[in-house]
Amino acid sequence: MESEIYFQHQELQEFATTVFLKCGFTESNARLSAKLLTRADLRGVDSHGVARLSGYVRLWQAGRLNAQPTFYWESRFPTQASLNANASIGFVSAHAAMEKAIEMAMKFGVGMVAVKNSNHFGIAGQYALQAADVGLIGMAMTNASPLVAPTFSTERMLGTNPIAIAVPGFSGDHFVLDMATTTAANGKLEILQRKKEKAPLGWIQSKNGSDSENPEELKNGGALKPLGSFPELSSHKGYGLGAMVDIFSGVLSGANFGPWVPPFVSFLPLAAMGVGEGIGHFLMAFRPDGFLEKSVFLERMKTWSETIRKAKPIANQKVMVHGDLERQIEIQRSQQGIPLLPEVLRDLEKLALEFDIAPLSILK
Amino acid sequence: MESEIYFQHQELQEFATTVFLKCGFTESNARLSAKLLTRADLRGVDSHGVARLSGYVRLWQAGRLNAQPTFYWESRFPTQASLNANASIGFVSAHAAMEKAIEMAMKFGVGMVAVKNSNHFGIAGQYALQAADVGLIGMAMTNASPLVAPTFSTERMLGTNPIAIAVPGFSGDHFVLDMATTTAANGKLEILQRKKEKAPLGWIQSKNGSDSENPEELKNGGALKPLGSFPELSSHKGYGLGAMVDIFSGVLSGANFGPWVPPFVSFLPLAAMGVGEGIGHFLMAFRPDGFLEKSVFLERMKTWSETIRKAKPIANQKVMVHGDLERQIEIQRSQQGIPLLPEVLRDLEKLALEFDIAPLSILK
Repeated sequence: MESEIYFQHQELQEFATTVFLKCGFTESNARLSAKLLTRADLRGVDSHGVARLSGYVRLWQAGRLNAQPTFYWESRFPTQASLNANASIGFVSAHAAMEKAIEMAMKFGVGMVAVKNSNHFGIAGQYALQAADVGLIGMAMTNASPLVAPTFSTERMLGTNPIAIAVPGFSGDHFVLDMATTTAANGKLEILQRKKEKAPLGWIQSKNGSDSENPEELKNGGALKPLGSFPELSSHKGYGLGAMVDIFSGVLSGANFGPWVPPFVSFLPLAAMGVGEGIGHFLMAFRPDGFLEKSVFLERMKTWSETIRKAKPIANQKVMVHGDLERQIEIQRSQQGIPLLPEVLRDLEKLALEFDIAPLSILK
Repeated sequence: MESEIYFQHQELQEFATTVFLKCGFTESNARLSAKLLTRADLRGVDSHGVARLSGYVRLWQAGRLNAQPTFYWESRFPTQASLNANASIGFVSAHAAMEKAIEMAMKFGVGMVAVKNSNHFGIAGQYALQAADVGLIGMAMTNASPLVAPTFSTERMLGTNPIAIAVPGFSGDHFVLDMATTTAANGKLEILQRKKEKAPLGWIQSKNGSDSENPEELKNGGALKPLGSFPELSSHKGYGLGAMVDIFSGVLSGANFGPWVPPFVSFLPLAAMGVGEGIGHFLMAFRPDGFLEKSVFLERMKTWSETIRKAKPIANQKVMVHGDLERQIEIQRSQQGIPLLPEVLRDLEKLALEFDIAPLSILK
């Protein structure tokens, strides 16, 4: 594998902003999308950052992403709202949906928004964090195109359907769980493909449902496996969580669901007959101080986190709380820059050429 | 293993009602507890049914379960409430909490209740079903005594911490996910212990954190493993879900959490210094018709379920939707009776003698 090249986070964000502006985004939507896109790079989720910038551009070129969406809101109860995102990029729609959920939660205790007619939104964790950063508990999920076979199925029926949950702690020490409901997220497969390495048994199955170590197996009709990997290790649970995400994000919102969820890549065909509009998200926020006084709650969260972190580890390991690792990476990359693989850089250089944008300056 | 003996569900329910009455429960609380306890037997979760009846009696005898609890409610926002269950049996408190969540959801769209100072509540699924049966989406979770080691930990820090989610479908065809956040629930271990069989690798670890096939390993300081089983199969996700359940049920409610959650069995000592009261639950209900018209939503759920069920299966298998299996078992056992293991029957006979109750009549 070729070695990585480092870039300032701010520069990547500016670059992405310029690309989105060239696609016709409004200034504020371009800035927001670029910020949320590159937040993935900052937090170490390289598969969901600028590596995907050209993917969004191709969706726009294919007419599947609306650069100037108008949002249509509906609300029947004080704590629930639906958003028709008008084919917006997911960053803008999910962010607006969480803002709305927060607003309802501030008044009534809880708020939830189902979004349809949207596109991919990057990492789920940051919408959950949007709530935690204002002192609320946040949940975010999205459905995604079918790559996953339910337990005992040879057919792909669900996406990697991530769930994120953030719980606020003292001075940003939030609990942040951000997980695909599969054993391995797609990004991990891409890494193996680039390194030409085998995948552990339990990540992937072949076209007929047998276990496979080939990270290219999805191109041959294979599928990702739900969290749990094997029936005897309870893969029906990972499958059930992915199903819940699909129901909340897709069925409830009026978006596509199951095998009909449109693919992220513009060169794959859409399912013959959709069952809804675009892809769907589900965002929720609620007040911890509806149950306990704020200071008491934060003190208890501190005790919780510190107790778990102090658990006796197995040799040469460390017990972490969810969010610890990403927080460390975020601090480190803010200072030292963001490493990109040469192929990602080439992809960005192609975009620079295509849109007549100044190329990126290499840090080291 | 000795063969099972069958009993009418109604008779088991009557028997349990009588036992709870003998402990001093009110008529309605005894009936409700017996109904929810034996619902586990009906739905095939044998580990959580009458096999545990004597366990609840021992908790009462140890002074840890209050037969005549007074509930203390608090509410600061229209969609959120806290319940101090006054050491109630979990059946009564979780049921009341879900009733309250439903009431708030009917008015405002969503309702959530955190419960502290409670005891074990049987299967989580039935509280989620309580919401689905009135047309709402329900979620239920509870923390439990520490048997689970977080990823890379040798110490037990979390319980099997189940999550249940029920989504209503046409005429009772509900989606019902009811899962421990561990690879294997404790009940599955008990089955292996009785059969003197080995556990699959990935269920259990030994005292030093190495993999173990010994279903008795927990007695030697071992631990259950979170869903995902191994770091390379993403056990940090199962650990994260268990953590979320503990935070929602324990930290938020004011109950004990993490290593302080009191054990179900009365002969194990309580943790030296608790961090709250009893064990905790978290119940939530929300309206699907806050997002889509009811009939449209149900039609979409039907399409969703039928599409997944029709997925091409691997040889000799069937693709099921969560809730299908339990629904089949419930119908079957309502007609043919409930099979009990001889040792469970002996346990019930002991209770009959102790409380001077008529013994059970064997069906076949």
